[in-house]
Amino acid sequence: MKELKLIKEIEGIAGNPGKGVKLGIGDDCAVIECDRKSYLLWASDMLIEGTHFNLKDAGYQRTGRKAVAVNISDIASMGGVPEYITVSVGLPAEGSLKAIRALYSGIKKICREYGISIVGGDVNRSKKLVIDVSIFGKVEKKRLITRSGAKEGDLILVTGPVRNGRKDHLDFVPRLKEARFLSGNYRISSMIDTSDGIAADLNRICASSRTGCRIYGDAVPLSEGSSFEDALYYGESFELLFTMSPLEARKLFKDIGRKRLELVYFVIGEMRSKKEGCKLIGKEGRVSILKMQGYKHF
Amino acid sequence: MKELKLIKEIEGIAGNPGKGVKLGIGDDCAVIECDRKSYLLWASDMLIEGTHFNLKDAGYQRTGRKAVAVNISDIASMGGVPEYITVSVGLPAEGSLKAIRALYSGIKKICREYGISIVGGDVNRSKKLVIDVSIFGKVEKKRLITRSGAKEGDLILVTGPVRNGRKDHLDFVPRLKEARFLSGNYRISSMIDTSDGIAADLNRICASSRTGCRIYGDAVPLSEGSSFEDALYYGESFELLFTMSPLEARKLFKDIGRKRLELVYFVIGEMRSKKEGCKLIGKEGRVSILKMQGYKHF
Repeated sequence: MKELKLIKEIEGIAGNPGKGVKLGIGDDCAVIECDRKSYLLWASDMLIEGTHFNLKDAGYQRTGRKAVAVNISDIASMGGVPEYITVSVGLPAEGSLKAIRALYSGIKKICREYGISIVGGDVNRSKKLVIDVSIFGKVEKKRLITRSGAKEGDLILVTGPVRNGRKDHLDFVPRLKEARFLSGNYRISSMIDTSDGIAADLNRICASSRTGCRIYGDAVPLSEGSSFEDALYYGESFELLFTMSPLEARKLFKDIGRKRLELVYFVIGEMRSKKEGCKLIGKEGRVSILKMQGYKHF
Repeated sequence: MKELKLIKEIEGIAGNPGKGVKLGIGDDCAVIECDRKSYLLWASDMLIEGTHFNLKDAGYQRTGRKAVAVNISDIASMGGVPEYITVSVGLPAEGSLKAIRALYSGIKKICREYGISIVGGDVNRSKKLVIDVSIFGKVEKKRLITRSGAKEGDLILVTGPVRNGRKDHLDFVPRLKEARFLSGNYRISSMIDTSDGIAADLNRICASSRTGCRIYGDAVPLSEGSSFEDALYYGESFELLFTMSPLEARKLFKDIGRKRLELVYFVIGEMRSKKEGCKLIGKEGRVSILKMQGYKHF
């Protein structure tokens, strides 16, 4: 997966961020000191016509919505609340006023749903539609969840059945409510959104937390029409993938039973020692390596 | 200038930003409440191959540098200090590792010069190179300069001779030092960077400040090889264009004389009442309208 090599390369060149930066490149958001009680969260995600979507199928409105949704998902996976976005657009010249209206109606609608203000951006001519949203949020210090806190023995959970990222990648609902519920009520040791598939994203948690993991193939919940392979290796489903100690997890299960919460979680595996590596337990107990592989951009 | 129509349209759709936002769309940066003494400044600027640069001439390294420089210029023109950036890239597949190294070496170098940390971003495949930098800075509340504070009678000034934006648009030096000097020592009533040419950018100040203006064509300082037309209507020169009362200006002129400051300013006109409109005084006193016209993207 060449994209990962590129990110590694960029991390190397970027070097250590200066003071005031709690976390730089290498998580869903950058984490910056704000005040005594909270951090700023900051992420940017770019969608490019032909790479991430087909404009004819998707249309401007849904593309605008998705460009914001993937960024909300980044803030959610750190346990925070989104507040502001800027939107940079490269727009094909044909019908640009109509196009920008459609694009921004999609953007505005999801911003309204999630209480986000549009505070700036840039608009330019481009052959292919490009949209880069930069999002800004906050998280209470004690509710911050990163990729690096998972411990050997922690359970691995995923929200909801894993959607079919090939089919539903435009209209997904970012798991903000779920993430805030989790960050406010439980000790979540690590979290990420499944943007590149469970395999790649779980490998990222393991790398950051210096652990291994094993997941049980049969336990991975699939929604109608999605394949096991896609859930593991395709991504674009934007569920939350997180870890917590068995003790914390018991609290969660009890609460779900008692309070009849409308939130769905599935245990799909457990964290292991680093030297055990990342393993997938498949049919009839067959063990294979959970490959660091996901959607290939390059 | 269709880009301006698009921005107007976007402003309309985006609507009023929520609480905590001092300024949304419509200035060089969004201005967000931070603490008692300072505001956060936030801007995003996108460069697209074929629209903003020719990759063969510019190369990856200089393009990376420029993508950061235009954003530093945005922070400068509000009187602030840049602190962090995220970088979203759409990268052609050919030679992507070598390309990303060159791009980031340009980014890293200018970041080091200006004390900026690279804290995040995104990398994707794209047919044409696209680079969107989102920048984050701070400004002391009393040093914030917007586009909207110019008053009738204020003088209009520009830093340095206006460079040839067609030739030098890649390697310009953002006027951060100059902007900080101005915001720290004088009451600057409004400021903007000349990214779209003096005519368009001055029209923006007039619109935000609800004033008119007149500029004296002969007073516009040109650097070698740049034409008057380009200085007015082409842009990409990234000088500071600002206004201050004649009284404040006298202080500045005295200081420059006395302290032998290495800073150059030219008075090019004065702010007038709104009903006078925006005028250009040309050869032999001929008066024409300073058109709201700049580099055409669409």
